[in-house]
Amino acid sequence: MKKNINIAIIGLGQIGIYLYNEIKIKKKEIEEKTGTKVNIVAISAKNKNKKRKFPIERNIFFKNPFQIFSTKKIDILFECIGSSDGISKKIVEKSLKNKIHVITPNKALIAKHGDMLAKLAEKNRVNLEFEASVAGGIPILRTIKEGLATNKIKKVYGILNGTTNYILSEMENSNENFNDVLKKAQKLGYAEPGNPKLDLNGFDAFAKVRILSALSFNTKISKSNCIMEGIENIKLDDIKIANQLGLRIKLLGISQLIDNKLFETVHPCLVNKNSYIGNVNGVMNAVITEGKPVGESILQGEGAGPGPTSSSLLSDLLSILRGNIKYPFGISSLKRRSVKAFNNDNYTNSLYLRFEVKDKQGVLSSITNRLTKFKISVKRIIQTPDKKNKKATIVIITHKTTEKNSRNCLSIFKKNKNILKFPTLIRLYN
Amino acid sequence: MKKNINIAIIGLGQIGIYLYNEIKIKKKEIEEKTGTKVNIVAISAKNKNKKRKFPIERNIFFKNPFQIFSTKKIDILFECIGSSDGISKKIVEKSLKNKIHVITPNKALIAKHGDMLAKLAEKNRVNLEFEASVAGGIPILRTIKEGLATNKIKKVYGILNGTTNYILSEMENSNENFNDVLKKAQKLGYAEPGNPKLDLNGFDAFAKVRILSALSFNTKISKSNCIMEGIENIKLDDIKIANQLGLRIKLLGISQLIDNKLFETVHPCLVNKNSYIGNVNGVMNAVITEGKPVGESILQGEGAGPGPTSSSLLSDLLSILRGNIKYPFGISSLKRRSVKAFNNDNYTNSLYLRFEVKDKQGVLSSITNRLTKFKISVKRIIQTPDKKNKKATIVIITHKTTEKNSRNCLSIFKKNKNILKFPTLIRLYN
Repeated sequence: MKKNINIAIIGLGQIGIYLYNEIKIKKKEIEEKTGTKVNIVAISAKNKNKKRKFPIERNIFFKNPFQIFSTKKIDILFECIGSSDGISKKIVEKSLKNKIHVITPNKALIAKHGDMLAKLAEKNRVNLEFEASVAGGIPILRTIKEGLATNKIKKVYGILNGTTNYILSEMENSNENFNDVLKKAQKLGYAEPGNPKLDLNGFDAFAKVRILSALSFNTKISKSNCIMEGIENIKLDDIKIANQLGLRIKLLGISQLIDNKLFETVHPCLVNKNSYIGNVNGVMNAVITEGKPVGESILQGEGAGPGPTSSSLLSDLLSILRGNIKYPFGISSLKRRSVKAFNNDNYTNSLYLRFEVKDKQGVLSSITNRLTKFKISVKRIIQTPDKKNKKATIVIITHKTTEKNSRNCLSIFKKNKNILKFPTLIRLYN
Repeated sequence: MKKNINIAIIGLGQIGIYLYNEIKIKKKEIEEKTGTKVNIVAISAKNKNKKRKFPIERNIFFKNPFQIFSTKKIDILFECIGSSDGISKKIVEKSLKNKIHVITPNKALIAKHGDMLAKLAEKNRVNLEFEASVAGGIPILRTIKEGLATNKIKKVYGILNGTTNYILSEMENSNENFNDVLKKAQKLGYAEPGNPKLDLNGFDAFAKVRILSALSFNTKISKSNCIMEGIENIKLDDIKIANQLGLRIKLLGISQLIDNKLFETVHPCLVNKNSYIGNVNGVMNAVITEGKPVGESILQGEGAGPGPTSSSLLSDLLSILRGNIKYPFGISSLKRRSVKAFNNDNYTNSLYLRFEVKDKQGVLSSITNRLTKFKISVKRIIQTPDKKNKKATIVIITHKTTEKNSRNCLSIFKKNKNILKFPTLIRLYN
């Protein structure tokens, strides 16, 4: 690496401004560790005058980020805008084409265009680094690419979204319902104030699953339709009942190779309260890999927020300053294989089914008869009457069955007028 | 890196032979990931004809490892013998002087001579890598040096020895005493059959603590006398009583900067059964770092055995094949500072004290009076009489006090004839 490196930061939101300040205060440390002087020579955001956490040097501010390329010599660019397309994508493409290294925490961009961008980086012999895109401060991508390199990974899973994990933990702790806890999360900055949907519906975690799959299995980023469910339908009742059963609800992202086919999913899971994953609470993230010969590895840490994210962005910076050009996904794009998708219909789990029914004779047996017809055997039934409202809650834990079978079995309950709402289904983690 | 790399492996015990086989079967993958062909051109061990897990190429075997230097061109040498001095040290020194990169899982060597060897590596512009020396398959050193680079780490601690963690877990699970479980551990290969002392007395964990400190705090490896206690005196009774109190005994290694002084220790700790660290059981290791801005990071995985160790050795190999020359301890030896030792006397904890006493009136009050005299206040007392033997067990949980104070306070009990054995002391983890 050269002795002097010019840096640009595009996007000065929560992450960008924190990063800007971190690089400035850690200049000397970075030089000590890498022998390279870094200088921030350009920053860009929509609004120059917005009130920010740290003051900016106004003379290096660009309203139009594309102007930077013609007026400044940039070696490394941080993209901190954060959308999967638009300026984010354009600026990254242009940088790579101009032989500028790119570092980004943008999971949506990498999950959607990572293959194309990696090729572009390799062609231009620059780095494209995205450690901060998955699990914030946890150096999981570097661990898979380097620390566990040459391990044969067959499964990677975990809690990949701090917002939803906070909400589920807090519902349990405070006994408050989903909407109230969501409001609290928004106040604390754990959930987007405007549109928290992408966290809640599993989309954010899914982007991370796709990136983890590609790195773990040396495959192209998959585009297949998978089971993606969020936590919007989890009721306080479900959390309480889980608690009684010694279980806890967690939104898990799971990726594994089954018979050499790729299975990726994000959905709420019932996990054992005494299990490791059952005790990762609050905004914490955790990623578990199962590899050969290393066995099970767990990484846990803060999954979001400017501090942890900056930690990962700086680790990418130092990696570039210290090392050679590396493949963005660990191996050459030419060697990354496409992999067929596992058929979701064959995904198999024990199920937690919660029915709200009219408190009438014969309702329970109509449910169990239907389950029997589909050979779904029952492990446990908990029936709780609500005499005042002439209702009852029936919770059934089943033995294992496939997605297809359970879907077909449950479909009929839409039409059953004794069943007040289509049953809530939560899969048990195997 | 060159296109063809010659490798030597010195020591073909459990680790060495497994590594030898792994490199052979992963040759193609290593080439794909790094663009470099690796060839094992020399192996060395005491006995050519010993029965080993995998067959060796007899034509590249050297009984005398020093002969390799004169007959073969070596680029990277694995030292897998494992002692802190003797041939281990000599072969590593000679390699570095000959500009050969060295990879080793040898914690005793690094904890004792790491500073000198790092200087030698830097002077000769080769790598000295020792990821496998701490926590087996967990890529903790790389994570501190790279993944968490630029974080200000103030504390690093964890379960660093799989043998002792297995013994403590298994005593709880099986209700068997220390000696029986130790025998089981030896049978299963979790403890050295001949001399398990270095695992049991905390020495092994301590070497790892010293290495972690140096990396976390950018300091020289400390030589100071610290509190080092093993698990040899833990009785099944202690485990049972801890269990009743919602606690669990773990052998923790702890390193932290207190008022800019270094405090390193290994001793059994009582931790909360519901805490993260309280649920790392069996042969698992876990390392927790507290850094700024990243917050708390946890890495957990298998801490020992040929598989996990090989995983780390290969990650070092790939790091060398992919990257530039790196400082063994993350920054230049010239910049690593010496740090004063924290005074052990001031180390402060709540204490668990178990007394075996004669079942006589006045014994308890003589104990509590003594504690009061030293201003050690009692949080909890559990007295269990053993009428048949005219004995009683008294367990006292105290509020916080310093090492010096507790040592002075307890000293008198050596002379008290009503106290049948000097009390067992286990510190509570803060």
